[in-house]
Amino acid sequence: MTRFALTLEFDGTPFFGLQRQSNGPSVQQAVEDALHRITGEEVVLHSAGRTDAGVHALAMRSHVDLEKPFDPFRLMEALNAHLRPDPIAVTHCEAVSEDWHARFSCTGRRYLYRIVNRRAPLTLMRDRAWHVAQPLDAEAMHRAAQALVGRHDFTTFRSVHCQAADPVKTLERLDVERDGDEIHIHASARSFLHHQVRSMVGCLKLVGAGTWPEARIAEALAARDRGALGLNAPPHGLYFVEATYPIESRD
Amino acid sequence: MTRFALTLEFDGTPFFGLQRQSNGPSVQQAVEDALHRITGEEVVLHSAGRTDAGVHALAMRSHVDLEKPFDPFRLMEALNAHLRPDPIAVTHCEAVSEDWHARFSCTGRRYLYRIVNRRAPLTLMRDRAWHVAQPLDAEAMHRAAQALVGRHDFTTFRSVHCQAADPVKTLERLDVERDGDEIHIHASARSFLHHQVRSMVGCLKLVGAGTWPEARIAEALAARDRGALGLNAPPHGLYFVEATYPIESRD
Repeated sequence: MTRFALTLEFDGTPFFGLQRQSNGPSVQQAVEDALHRITGEEVVLHSAGRTDAGVHALAMRSHVDLEKPFDPFRLMEALNAHLRPDPIAVTHCEAVSEDWHARFSCTGRRYLYRIVNRRAPLTLMRDRAWHVAQPLDAEAMHRAAQALVGRHDFTTFRSVHCQAADPVKTLERLDVERDGDEIHIHASARSFLHHQVRSMVGCLKLVGAGTWPEARIAEALAARDRGALGLNAPPHGLYFVEATYPIESRD
Repeated sequence: MTRFALTLEFDGTPFFGLQRQSNGPSVQQAVEDALHRITGEEVVLHSAGRTDAGVHALAMRSHVDLEKPFDPFRLMEALNAHLRPDPIAVTHCEAVSEDWHARFSCTGRRYLYRIVNRRAPLTLMRDRAWHVAQPLDAEAMHRAAQALVGRHDFTTFRSVHCQAADPVKTLERLDVERDGDEIHIHASARSFLHHQVRSMVGCLKLVGAGTWPEARIAEALAARDRGALGLNAPPHGLYFVEATYPIESRD
């Protein structure tokens, strides 16, 4: 048996999420089906993150175990050929040791959330960013975001479907930057609760629009109550950007 | 009568081009139809460039003449509402003097061509860039491109359908830059021949791949013969980025 680490890029628009779903297409199913067609083996794809429907990935890290030997480059090429026309690409593939696990070995996850802040609707960025027409104060959003950085009980910013045992997480970074019409929100942590990034971004948008005072972010956090959440940002602005490992799989 | 200058952003994928076509949807027809629904008037949209099917625009400059008075901001909002679901957005609208002409007053056009240079197929950038799997030497492409800068007879890099009276154009800038997997080609001139940017990019790709020696770009130019053209780059990597005017329409 050989374990192969895969780096996946995908457009989340046509999928019901990364994880296999009973009710619609998923990234996991597309990759597992492609692997089955190539190898004849029934495989399970394990991934660093479990992104929702519509959420994109620039470099999701995953792994699969295969009985038959494969050259990693040829496996990547075969996967990319068999994944067409789904918007999923394998950008890196290598054999790793069996103690490297895409999910359990991962010690850092990084997300990017993209907002386009202008009156005009989106064209090239449709399904690629959250369109917010009212002017947002990105500096106020950044200041307010700092109340969330650190080790906290993030119950307020947690989906009712979240399966994590513990709502306490350590948010390493939550930076809000404006670049012309675009606002980029960078979030890093060892791990996140389900919907945590989108919930934090939704509340920061209320601060940016002046609907919430900056201090309300800290109050919402302290409430430890999903009822204190202002807004969940839509999935199509969210990108899984990077997963980090203490023992890198790569050469 | 009032002349309104419009700035248009569009995803060229679903259109047969900017100009009205008898055989399929065009950006011009979509905008003229939306204006007709708003104003009841039969209008003609004039634009700085005439982009082909699949070519995108970040800031095309256009104008229309309307008999009825309109507040520019309200006209922009109404146009954006009536253009849905077409991927066309009006990002700026203002009243201008009748001697300002989006096409004839324009003294500078700028294009960007995007190549994604990697093995893996495209996902989020599908229809947004030219996917070239073989490694390209962007520095060699940049050096070779400099032979095209200046005043030349660009007959080699001209479509057989080009309607320009004179094949002599002055290319102000042709820069090739690599940013990770992406190669960006920036082209500026007062005006371009039909297919000129895509023809130049296609030949530069042959240089980047090592199929053509760098000097062959200058030879192809000197040949003044469409038969010396190596390759026409596909439309979906091309973006109309900017039009400049000696008398700016904007405040």
